Amino acid sequence: MEVYLDYQSSKPVDPRVVEAMVPFFHENFGNPSSLHTEGDAATEALTHSRETIAGLIHADGDEIVFTSGATESNNLAIIGYALRNKKKGDHIIVSEVDHISVHNIAKYLEKNGFTVSKVPVDRYGRIHLQKLADRVTDRTILVSVCYASNEIGTVQPVAEIGAYCRERGIAFHTDAVAAEGLLSLDPAQDGIDLMTLSSNDIYGPKGLGVLFVRKGVRLSPLVIGGGQERGLRSGTENIPAIAGMAKAVEILHEEMTDEVGRFTLFRDRLIEEIPSRIPRCYLNGHTKERLPNNAHFRFDGIEGEALLLRLKAAGISASTGSACTSKTLEPSHTLIATGLLHEEAHGSLELTCGRFTTDTEINYVLDTLPGVVEGLRKLSPLYKE
Amino acid sequence: MEVYLDYQSSKPVDPRVVEAMVPFFHENFGNPSSLHTEGDAATEALTHSRETIAGLIHADGDEIVFTSGATESNNLAIIGYALRNKKKGDHIIVSEVDHISVHNIAKYLEKNGFTVSKVPVDRYGRIHLQKLADRVTDRTILVSVCYASNEIGTVQPVAEIGAYCRERGIAFHTDAVAAEGLLSLDPAQDGIDLMTLSSNDIYGPKGLGVLFVRKGVRLSPLVIGGGQERGLRSGTENIPAIAGMAKAVEILHEEMTDEVGRFTLFRDRLIEEIPSRIPRCYLNGHTKERLPNNAHFRFDGIEGEALLLRLKAAGISASTGSACTSKTLEPSHTLIATGLLHEEAHGSLELTCGRFTTDTEINYVLDTLPGVVEGLRKLSPLYKE
Repeated sequence: MEVYLDYQSSKPVDPRVVEAMVPFFHENFGNPSSLHTEGDAATEALTHSRETIAGLIHADGDEIVFTSGATESNNLAIIGYALRNKKKGDHIIVSEVDHISVHNIAKYLEKNGFTVSKVPVDRYGRIHLQKLADRVTDRTILVSVCYASNEIGTVQPVAEIGAYCRERGIAFHTDAVAAEGLLSLDPAQDGIDLMTLSSNDIYGPKGLGVLFVRKGVRLSPLVIGGGQERGLRSGTENIPAIAGMAKAVEILHEEMTDEVGRFTLFRDRLIEEIPSRIPRCYLNGHTKERLPNNAHFRFDGIEGEALLLRLKAAGISASTGSACTSKTLEPSHTLIATGLLHEEAHGSLELTCGRFTTDTEINYVLDTLPGVVEGLRKLSPLYKE
Repeated sequence: MEVYLDYQSSKPVDPRVVEAMVPFFHENFGNPSSLHTEGDAATEALTHSRETIAGLIHADGDEIVFTSGATESNNLAIIGYALRNKKKGDHIIVSEVDHISVHNIAKYLEKNGFTVSKVPVDRYGRIHLQKLADRVTDRTILVSVCYASNEIGTVQPVAEIGAYCRERGIAFHTDAVAAEGLLSLDPAQDGIDLMTLSSNDIYGPKGLGVLFVRKGVRLSPLVIGGGQERGLRSGTENIPAIAGMAKAVEILHEEMTDEVGRFTLFRDRLIEEIPSRIPRCYLNGHTKERLPNNAHFRFDGIEGEALLLRLKAAGISASTGSACTSKTLEPSHTLIATGLLHEEAHGSLELTCGRFTTDTEINYVLDTLPGVVEGLRKLSPLYKE
């Protein structure tokens, strides 16, 4: 049996999305900048798709900037805002549990004259507003906190942070890719100025990201050229991918409520049954403020990579944390931020379900995982029952 | 009848390429950074595709950096090289006939402490080495000259420039997208350190570019994050697009010689017959050092946009110049650089053929264009026979 419970790392493109993209590959393949029939069709598809995608977050089409993915959106948001607004101040706050791209962007800004503070999280991975407020100075221009952790699934108090930032005139960016398609997103309501989204995270094609830029927020562009995307992101628009993402949004409009209901049942079964079937297994992340598709555990006496390899042999694909750092030997910075020791962080397993997850897959994991953990523990010189 | 002779602006994706991409959308959709079966399959596809794509330019896989397109590749090459190597010098040379993205990047660098010189071209759009050498100083670190003009199709003396730069320890970047799939490219042989390529320019999907980075050449990354592409370009790899581009390269290996032969016949018919059927029509660009698919004319007493609209009404899609600037009212900077007056530059028409161009299409254009030009001239208060 093949079971894929690593939707956090990568999602298949919905076949309906692929179908919507195909005509844009070799029938309607024009460049929106061209003054002919194919160019007009491309412009129309671009405008229509932009409006549809904006609808996912109750935004206007002209608040949507297309990029090549979430990483680029994070770069454009944080570096673009910092460089454009450095006269206002040189201090930026990010969270301890943000994606590695945000942390590496922060390092880059530190080398370029900015000061960066990291706001800590509690043992469930959640930020407390007071801890954020403690770090704000009169030089602070930008706060960047993920909407939810892509690893442990903890959802942040985004509206609270947004209200706080808005009151103080500090821009607020949130990387919302982990929450996309799972939670209802409304940046205007939540005081969010910049929001990173990605196409693949809602079963659209890879290679396409979105940055929501609230009207009036000014950024320096990162990629310079022909002036597409109102000068914020040059390069010929990737119409097939954009049309695909629009289709992915349309599917969500129809199906998100049911889908999230299904994910929640799967997640809750995993969270209830795995610790009851496996001794000394603990849930990572928050019990309530948690993504509906995320179950994340640690096991005493288990090394995460060995566990993944055993699961792979049993046909199960899962993760120990962010895919973006899986191939390094570093423990997850998110788990360390929640106060886990290195060896505890290394003994973790992330299971994320998605659109094509079935009851049978969940049952198989529940039946298989206990034996795999027990087998590994028997080999471990460190583990004692 | 529908005729598309604007392959320079945008190309359809070859149906065989789409077929090669489809399995990567919803069967092999893993993240190469993941430690499971889907991740392994993605890594394998990535490695294999990278080698295939490198083969197009006789390079090694580890000299290939995937980006989101040609514009980003130009940004990474020029800004990335300049920022990383500014201790060596602060002077950069670009050509008058480079793509607008290169010109706008040059402006950006000028605002950031660099000096930029533009090397002029002759009336055929070609650079003379002496004119380049005249502009080199002991502060010059980088020369960026397009391989061929995407507008008038003039091919530059790239090997000559490469040899000159190599001798002086100056890095040489070339934007080769207009020449890709039409001329044989060999950066190692031609003394090229950095070469921009794009997937769509060889009938691969949009949203994917390549930067060839010769071993030993150091760049600052533009997009920061998880450290993909050896730290030069972060972001989850777009495997379906990369596999698609690899398929596009495989097709070229089989078909490029025949295809270019066909294009050359089409181009030569256009270049011979249009000026013979239409009075006061002149060829723009070089007669010999010219892309095999490019025919570019100017017509006395004709306004290019009006011509495009009439052609559109007759079912013909063409261009007045770079699609990236078609919607502005500026005349083509490339034509101005060849010494044309503004009104002459505005009276131009670019016809570029491609993989799906037929004899029937060429015949239709040859039969239709004279009447369209004549009709417009009759309306013109300026044109006198």
